[in-house]
Amino acid sequence: MTRERTPAEADRDRRAASVDLLGVLAYGKIAAFALLSAESVRAPRHDLRVALAEYAVAEFADYELLAARVRSLGVDPAQAVAPFRAAVDDFHARTAPSSWVEGLVRAYIGDGIAVDFFAAVSAFLDPAIGELVEHIGDHGGRADFAIAAVREAVEGDPALAARLSLWGRRLVGEAVTQVQQMAAQRDPLARLLVGDVHGAGTDLGELGRIITSVTDTHQERLRRLGLSA
Amino acid sequence: MTRERTPAEADRDRRAASVDLLGVLAYGKIAAFALLSAESVRAPRHDLRVALAEYAVAEFADYELLAARVRSLGVDPAQAVAPFRAAVDDFHARTAPSSWVEGLVRAYIGDGIAVDFFAAVSAFLDPAIGELVEHIGDHGGRADFAIAAVREAVEGDPALAARLSLWGRRLVGEAVTQVQQMAAQRDPLARLLVGDVHGAGTDLGELGRIITSVTDTHQERLRRLGLSA
Repeated sequence: MTRERTPAEADRDRRAASVDLLGVLAYGKIAAFALLSAESVRAPRHDLRVALAEYAVAEFADYELLAARVRSLGVDPAQAVAPFRAAVDDFHARTAPSSWVEGLVRAYIGDGIAVDFFAAVSAFLDPAIGELVEHIGDHGGRADFAIAAVREAVEGDPALAARLSLWGRRLVGEAVTQVQQMAAQRDPLARLLVGDVHGAGTDLGELGRIITSVTDTHQERLRRLGLSA
Repeated sequence: MTRERTPAEADRDRRAASVDLLGVLAYGKIAAFALLSAESVRAPRHDLRVALAEYAVAEFADYELLAARVRSLGVDPAQAVAPFRAAVDDFHARTAPSSWVEGLVRAYIGDGIAVDFFAAVSAFLDPAIGELVEHIGDHGGRADFAIAAVREAVEGDPALAARLSLWGRRLVGEAVTQVQQMAAQRDPLARLLVGDVHGAGTDLGELGRIITSVTDTHQERLRRLGLSA
């Protein structure tokens, strides 16, 4: 028998879910920054190494935007990212790239899935946070570099294209698994996702629909890279 | 029997030495960027991880400044950095840090030595390039973070302080060796260093004096970190 929550409780829950959402994205960004930077040394040409470094630096700029928003909610970014460190590091450990182009595909696909998913979720939460998430997802230049570099790498190399297509499927599987586990384990996110935050949340059916839509966009993204979905 | 060089030849030599100087610094910066970024994941606290990432991003910004100058001399940065890749990578391979704080000391000390050395050299070459090199060496904020973080790490840990002091000595030894080999092997730099570029170059005695002065500044830098020289 659950009693009605007071407006103060609803507020507190909404704030906690916002911090979670910003925290998981922020940790994803700072983790991607370190991985892409390290990966840059494996680029086959200096110009690609520089472009990969620029991509990494842009990921860090996203981290700083998200951390600033966390701080504006009165929370230390270190606290906000802590609960998600294990899940994100685990995703990266299970999807360790064996070449720089696999690393690039992981960054592009991983970013895309995370942003699509959390943008869809944040639509139920706070329009301002939804806008920030969409803004972060909307980096034309970065995506263009990734698309061009992957297309260049697979051109005339159908074996690599086939390997990267498989890689893309594995990435989406791992990402969806992590997101579902995370959503189930983190109270503030779970409450949001089962519709327990100020009435207008998602329910489990809604979560399924979001994942389906994220998976559809993922197919699109693979095709843009010149890979088959 | 060497004939007098024509003004056009002297110009060409000066330009080649400038490109070399910018190239070696640029490669050092983009290499430091990747290493520090990768190292950031080992930081013991989230705030230190973020600060290390900011340090790395600033190294990359330096790379972009140097690369822009190379481009303004009509040279592709990829060409300018290529001759120095092996020496810089070799320096890093021989000084692989076993902890994040060793990595931070390496970045701070390595940056300092490279900038001091090449600023002294470029004084004989082109004032504008000398200014750029000094500007790059003059990052108060970055140095302050490194100094504070290393001091914090060694405070109350004399064993670590002793280990890092040894580490600092090893770094300067390796750096001086690499710089001397590089100066001897690269024609445009060697000509500059033996006084063969438009009359006003250094000679081998001058090179010795520069290295002595760089080593003195290095002692200063170690003391600032709370380490013994």
